[in-house]
Amino acid sequence: MTIELSPDALAGLLEQARKEYQNLAGCGLSLDLTRGKPAPEQLDLSNALFSLPGERYTSADGTDLRNYGGLQGLPELREIFAEALQVPVGQLLAAGNSSLELMHDCVVHALLSGVPGVESRWVDQDRIAFLCPVPGYDRHFGICERFGIEMIQVPMTAEGPDMDVVERLVAEDPAIKGIWCVPKYSNPTGITYSDATVARLASMSTAAPDFRIFWDNAYAVHHLTDTSVEIADLLAACAEAGHPDRTFVFGSTSKITLAGAGVAFFGSSPANVEWLLSKSAKRSIGPDKINQLRHAILLQDTDGLRTHMERHRALLQPKFDAVARILEAELGGSGLAGWTSPEGGYFVTLEVPEGCAKEVVRRAAEAGIVLTPAGATHPYGDDPRDAVIRIAPSYPGLDELEQAIKGLAVCVRLVGYERQSR
Amino acid sequence: MTIELSPDALAGLLEQARKEYQNLAGCGLSLDLTRGKPAPEQLDLSNALFSLPGERYTSADGTDLRNYGGLQGLPELREIFAEALQVPVGQLLAAGNSSLELMHDCVVHALLSGVPGVESRWVDQDRIAFLCPVPGYDRHFGICERFGIEMIQVPMTAEGPDMDVVERLVAEDPAIKGIWCVPKYSNPTGITYSDATVARLASMSTAAPDFRIFWDNAYAVHHLTDTSVEIADLLAACAEAGHPDRTFVFGSTSKITLAGAGVAFFGSSPANVEWLLSKSAKRSIGPDKINQLRHAILLQDTDGLRTHMERHRALLQPKFDAVARILEAELGGSGLAGWTSPEGGYFVTLEVPEGCAKEVVRRAAEAGIVLTPAGATHPYGDDPRDAVIRIAPSYPGLDELEQAIKGLAVCVRLVGYERQSR
Repeated sequence: MTIELSPDALAGLLEQARKEYQNLAGCGLSLDLTRGKPAPEQLDLSNALFSLPGERYTSADGTDLRNYGGLQGLPELREIFAEALQVPVGQLLAAGNSSLELMHDCVVHALLSGVPGVESRWVDQDRIAFLCPVPGYDRHFGICERFGIEMIQVPMTAEGPDMDVVERLVAEDPAIKGIWCVPKYSNPTGITYSDATVARLASMSTAAPDFRIFWDNAYAVHHLTDTSVEIADLLAACAEAGHPDRTFVFGSTSKITLAGAGVAFFGSSPANVEWLLSKSAKRSIGPDKINQLRHAILLQDTDGLRTHMERHRALLQPKFDAVARILEAELGGSGLAGWTSPEGGYFVTLEVPEGCAKEVVRRAAEAGIVLTPAGATHPYGDDPRDAVIRIAPSYPGLDELEQAIKGLAVCVRLVGYERQSR
Repeated sequence: MTIELSPDALAGLLEQARKEYQNLAGCGLSLDLTRGKPAPEQLDLSNALFSLPGERYTSADGTDLRNYGGLQGLPELREIFAEALQVPVGQLLAAGNSSLELMHDCVVHALLSGVPGVESRWVDQDRIAFLCPVPGYDRHFGICERFGIEMIQVPMTAEGPDMDVVERLVAEDPAIKGIWCVPKYSNPTGITYSDATVARLASMSTAAPDFRIFWDNAYAVHHLTDTSVEIADLLAACAEAGHPDRTFVFGSTSKITLAGAGVAFFGSSPANVEWLLSKSAKRSIGPDKINQLRHAILLQDTDGLRTHMERHRALLQPKFDAVARILEAELGGSGLAGWTSPEGGYFVTLEVPEGCAKEVVRRAAEAGIVLTPAGATHPYGDDPRDAVIRIAPSYPGLDELEQAIKGLAVCVRLVGYERQSR
């Protein structure tokens, strides 16, 4: 995307950028764009939880939810989320406050016991690898790193991971046991997997009989436009393709109700659900069903969930619009950056010239604008092209966000022109 | 404890017991003494949680508890429990709704990463064993069984596990990596570890450098008499003895507030706490801090906790008294049974003649009285003497409980006299 500039023009632009950066650094900013955290105003949407469940503490079937038990989670809450997560309610579990925990624990159970249909434990294999579409979610990669699971990068396309690469790798390498996917409004690019991608994931041949797709549908209902993007039903597609146990579906209300006090979900084939339940039964006597009841009362049904998410959109869309508007105004046509325009989710991916991302992040931090570390979108925190920066617009107020993005653009120009001047 | 009877006397007692059992079986009872679940009246004591935290959602230091973060748990709640659990507040973590999860996860992390001070992972050892004082808690044994950890039984005395046996075993066998302990009002005998037992646990030499005491202080504040039994501080004793990392302390509010929606705690040495935090950071972005805030508001401080537990005692003590009274009236002097008189906790252990426990439980079930399976108090569900029955008096109402214990006594007499008649 680099644009050819005359030496004089470049020198002028660089001088201008240096002045702007000096001004920026003099502003004493303290802005944080690091993580995809909901803003306080978004959390306010669920403050009713703080006086729920009120007088009631029984489920629809009369169970006293205060006591032990109910490992599968509250049926009425699972019913609200079955449609959004594309999992039959009987195959959907409601758990604790974090879907990351469920992903981590599925890996743990596979390491220490193997998965349904295969006798061998992952921990007994010489080598275990996961496919990691990049850019992707750092906490997924963190689970692999923590357990010494090799990470094989797969490039993302506008339709999801490059399926030619995925199909070739999984067909030839039996050590590849999994792939991390955020299928809708992906973290961090915002792209959504096409129907063709889903179909190919479901039907592809894998050398590993115990291959699993970790389908982290974190942004299932997190739309930013009038188009409620839908994805094909991977769980059903896998069953139809003769691979019923291939998919683990994850979801949570962390970015629907409260980031720290929501409810996480796991859905899969009957065999996989039975597997996780039997392992979980040795670990817990049941999830916090009172918090699940709070959520069921707050959200009520799928319509209630939709209405609730429209309120989030009303708060988030202006921030994403501002990011797009400012990036276009500040960097459009400069040849120094490209960026995504997500229709949902929590992130914008900014791409800067190769070798510049770390330096942009460093300069921004020096000017008081903290960004997600460059490289976080890649395994081991290492983006080989050093070009991807993840922008998380949700948390700051609109004014702060605008300041931060303008400042970020100053840093991109400074670093970009410096690089071109060498 | 068997008493010699003449053949005629025995025949008469057996006939009488058979008649009583026939009557019992004809009553159509449906009573459940299986698990140590709080009764609805006990859960009512914490119903205020259902409209908490109300308007407030920040911690004492101003943190918005609705959002991600705070892996260590809410400081003000940890302060309330530091004294009861004998852990400095800086070394105490507040987590999810289940201490069993924390115990399970400590085993998982040790299996997959080892523990502080030792490089090797437990999963790479040929053999891993835990000492299991018996009778003990079935869910502890369940964790060992799930991960193929060998269980070595150690007899319980009135002062805790037989320390002569413990010291000999841990000194000679480097495969022994842990011991399960419920040090106060033990599950199921109700005994409390003496100061000498605690001192010997802290100072003993272990062949395994990575030996850990799983100190499940589940009944730390669960007194049933005016004597608030105290135990010696194992964590401090270990540090003094030069084994600072030997102990993992666990606790929870499951039997203080809500069994399904409470808060669990982990405490240990700084190195162990750092270890668990670093592993947990790959799994979660923080516990449900709002639920922790609810608990901090409900309980307020250590005095509030004490007052709250006195209300539990007022509900539980009559039940334990009834069990003792009925067992004495029905079986006292019969030579057919002995039982414990716990000063706290949730269980009474009934000991019947060798080879009789399973049959008593079977006959009771046929008469509509469901007990914890005989053997559950031992590893693999196998009590080699088939003599121990765990009674859980907390859940049923007083009338039901009295009916159940009377019925149980009938079954003990029936099976006991049948056995003597052979």
